[in-house]
Amino acid sequence: MDLRDVLAINLRRLRHAKELSQDDLAYEAEVSRSYLSQIEKGKYYASLKIIEKLAGVLEVEAWELLKLPGE
Amino acid sequence: MDLRDVLAINLRRLRHAKELSQDDLAYEAEVSRSYLSQIEKGKYYASLKIIEKLAGVLEVEAWELLKLPGE
Repeated sequence: MDLRDVLAINLRRLRHAKELSQDDLAYEAEVSRSYLSQIEKGKYYASLKIIEKLAGVLEVEAWELLKLPGE
Repeated sequence: MDLRDVLAINLRRLRHAKELSQDDLAYEAEVSRSYLSQIEKGKYYASLKIIEKLAGVLEVEAWELLKLPGE
């Protein structure tokens, strides 16, 4: 498991916890829905710019997106 | 302060703690020295790929590079 997978797991978990669709999160974070979909599949190494935006919408600190729960 | 600044502060702190030069860290992490220099100045939003490599050399978890000490 690399950082792409950790990010993907956390994004899906936190997005569901806030009851947001991929469309909702993508719109709020100003990223494309297709890009977000790929990130949630662990396909891309996102940049910190994207991570900052996603964390802002999900109301968590950016580092929390890179840390597995319980780690 | 945005994520670029947090990353810059942590990189400089951890690199100095391991008594590595920018050349040393760049070489070990397989990034260019000039790119590392810019990241340590908070100029760039690095990608997770780079952060993963830098964390590996500095022997910390990737999320620790995005978290301010004491936060």
